[in-house]
This record gives sequence, structure tokens and C-alpha cells, in this order.
Amino acid sequence: MTEPIGHHRWAIAEGYIPGSSTGPPETMTSHETACILNAGDAEAHVEIMAFFTDREPVGPYRVTVPARRTLHQRFNDLDDPAPIPRDTPYASIITSDVPIVVQHTRLDSRQAENALLSTIAFPVAG
Amino acid sequence: MTEPIGHHRWAIAEGYIPGSSTGPPETMTSHETACILNAGDAEAHVEIMAFFTDREPVGPYRVTVPARRTLHQRFNDLDDPAPIPRDTPYASIITSDVPIVVQHTRLDSRQAENALLSTIAFPVAG
Amino acid sequence: MTEPIGHHRWAIAEGYIPGSSTGPPETMTSHETACILNAGDAEAHVEIMAFFTDREPVGPYRVTVPARRTLHQRFNDLDDPAPIPRDTPYASIITSDVPIVVQHTRLDSRQAENALLSTIAFPVAG
Amino acid sequence: MTEPIGHHRWAIAEGYIPGSSTGPPETMTSHETACILNAGDAEAHVEIMAFFTDREPVGPYRVTVPARRTLHQRFNDLDDPAPIPRDTPYASIITSDVPIVVQHTRLDSRQAENALLSTIAFPVAG
Repeated sequence: MTEPIGHHRWAIAEGYIPGSSTGPPETMTSHETACILNAGDAEAHVEIMAFFTDREPVGPYRVTVPARRTLHQRFNDLDDPAPIPRDTPYASIITSDVPIVVQHTRLDSRQAENALLSTIAFPVAG
Repeated sequence: MTEPIGHHRWAIAEGYIPGSSTGPPETMTSHETACILNAGDAEAHVEIMAFFTDREPVGPYRVTVPARRTLHQRFNDLDDPAPIPRDTPYASIITSDVPIVVQHTRLDSRQAENALLSTIAFPVAG
Repeated sequence: MTEPIGHHRWAIAEGYIPGSSTGPPETMTSHETACILNAGDAEAHVEIMAFFTDREPVGPYRVTVPARRTLHQRFNDLDDPAPIPRDTPYASIITSDVPIVVQHTRLDSRQAENALLSTIAFPVAG
Repeated sequence: MTEPIGHHRWAIAEGYIPGSSTGPPETMTSHETACILNAGDAEAHVEIMAFFTDREPVGPYRVTVPARRTLHQRFNDLDDPAPIPRDTPYASIITSDVPIVVQHTRLDSRQAENALLSTIAFPVAG
């Protein structure tokens, strides 16, 4: 079960971190997450590029996913080279040196009860 | 990171703009969005056709996505050649002259707390 | 825009019609829908088979989608050869004589505020 | 309608069982489900491996899906070799000896009104 699985590049066309939240911090903070699975035996070096409506792409943000591990990376926590702005439409492309699987999830707690969305990202290549 | 990514044509079989909303206008208005990512270096000229239950398709609606940009196009805002009717099932086909990635999202605020759904659109060709 | 688009067969592994609802009937009744897009110029003759946990599959349920139309078919409304039971896990396979696109959506209004889920169905063949 | 459909291996990069719930037990307990459809005439022997952020994968969990049946397996109920921890990010790979279709769903009832997400899993091979 340790062979590499997935693709080297994924795209997420939907991105939007709500700027407000309701409920206990951290778990109920409005957030978006790129869930990355690295099922293989080699560490994955991952680069995330963020695309916007009216300016040049920002990145790459760099994260590492160890062998046989999953990383649920909150876009809220990316800050180098710059934080992802809140209440702003964006999109992202996620590139890895080894095959990975990527799924995208948002928790929106702007109103009293949270809402969720999730979808598999779009696999681009190999 | 600026090569074109995705497909020229996408289909979204689910479409339904709720006719009522709760909460602050604009951000919490019930809406549906086609999130389009154009990762390439050429402007994308995009045509959207809307399909209905009981009449001929309407369109094309035309939008442009600049190079290396994302456009989160609300179906609510399409009005040429005609607005998308509310509380009415529809579907859409999105065609671009360059490769794009498309994801579909709905925010439904008919009740006090909003609900969300999202899915990658269906990639049709090249 | 009128060439056929999609696949002849789709699978939806998730199925569950909540047995109770809150809110105005019809629009807010808990339901599941197979959203079918027939973008081509020939009428689509569609057969739906329902699979269960502990008994043989039921069907086919037969629906027709005219040329260049979408049909958002509620599983709640299928009743020949038998209604889909409520509060019961099921799955479905949708087969058409011409290419179609299928997306699956549930509205769950068991509690005061509705929840939504949606995903593209799994395309099986041609 | 009884030929095998789908793939032998699927990946779900998103996994998170909320540790608290609101509402009637069982139906409204926060949970995650792998919905598995075995449309073929042979019993499916399925193995689920769970991946984590900071330790080695756990499993395989073994489940059987009879011929022409669907199994909506709650991750909450897996306990051999070990329960899936709550409030903990995880991912999963699902492998079967015959083709199956897999969809992933979460019901989150930490707050008074439940939220739902669902997506088709990522098909890995044959």
C-alpha cells in the first residue's frame, strides 16, 4: 500500500476564505483546506500557486508531506510570500515532485450554523 | 506555472438559483457560481450555454478571463441575452478557446443558515 | 452546441433520502436528485437501477430526456416498479442510449436549516 | 446491469470525524461514510488503509460487499485493528479485488443544524 498514487499537478478553481466566523476558534473558524495524500515512500515537495481576479499569481507556497502521510493544509495558514486575502475569490494550482491526491474543503461559519463543501481537485498531469 | 491547464469544454448538469435569500445582500444572496481558472498566458474567451427542462437552450453568454487569472462568475449576474430564471432547474455547458478549469458552487440562503454545495464540473474535451 | 456530450453510463454510490423534512413542502422536502443533461439532438432514453444493502437491485426506472434539455429527476418521485424507500442507503446506475452528463444532489431538511451536498456522478463508459 | 463497474482502488484525501454531535443518536451523529457500490456478480473483498499526519498508516480494515449490493460503511464503525480517532485529520485508500465505485460523505452535527459534504473518491487504477 506504499506505492505512489495520484497525479503531480492538481487545480482548484474555487477558492474563498470567508472573512468572519461564528463559534469556537480554530475548529469552527471559517477556513479552506487542501487535503493532500502522499501514499508513497518518498517525501512530497509541494508548491501551491494562488490565482486572483485582478492581479498576478502569488507563490509558490511550499509545503512538505512526508512519506505515507496526509497533510490537511489550511489556506488560512499560508503566509509566505503573503497571506491569502479573506473575502476574496481565488484559485490554486498544486504541484508535487511525486504523485499525490488532492481534495478541497471549505467550512463556512459566517452564520450561526456552519456549512461545508468539498470536491476532488482537478488532476492535471501524470 | 503559466502553461494552459484544463479542458476546452465543461458541463454542469446541476443548476438552480434559489429565488429567495436571508442575510446581508450580495455575500449572502442565494447564488450559483462558475469558478473558472485560466492558468495560461492567453486570454480565455468563454461561452456559456444554459439548458432548461421545457424550452430551447439560451445563449451564448460571453465572458472573458484574462491570462493567469480566475473569474468566479455568478450565474445570477448573466443577463445577455436573458437572465437565468430563479427557482428553475437548468444546466450549463461552458466552452473556451483555451484550456480552463471549471468548478461549480451554490450558496443557498433561503433558510436562516446558509448551505453550500460544490463540485468539479465535467470535463468534456481537450 | 448541440452535439451529444458525456457518457452512456454513470454510477452514484451514495444514496439516502431522509425520511423527514422541515419547511415548506416540495421545495424544502428532503430529496435526492439525479440532474441529467442531454445536450445532443436525439432524445435520451434513460434507465435507472437502484442497488441496496440487503436485497436484489430494483428497476429499471425509465425516464426520457428530450433533445437539448435537462431533467432534474427526484429519486423521491420514482415509483415504477417500486418507490425508493426512505431512510435507507442505496446506490444507482444510470444508463442512456445517447451520451448524457449526470450530477447528484441531496437536500436534507431533517433539521430546521437545510443542508446540501452534490457531486458529479462517476462516468462508466463511452 | 450486473457487470462489474468502476475501479479496483480509490483514494479519499479528506477525512475528519467530528468528535461531537447534536441531535438524535445514530442518524444525526457526526460521521463519515465510504459509500461502496459493487454492481458485479462477484463478492467484493475490500481493504481500507487509513493515513495520518504524524504516524504510520493503520490497517487494513476489511469489509465485504456482496454481489449487486451497496455498502455505506461508516468510518466511525471501523475498529479492527484500531478505531479511527475523532477530531483528527486522516485520509484513506480503498482497494477491492473486483471493480467498485466509491463516494465519500460527511455529516457534521457539531452545531445545532447539520452540514453535509460529499464527493466522488479519486479512482486510482483499473
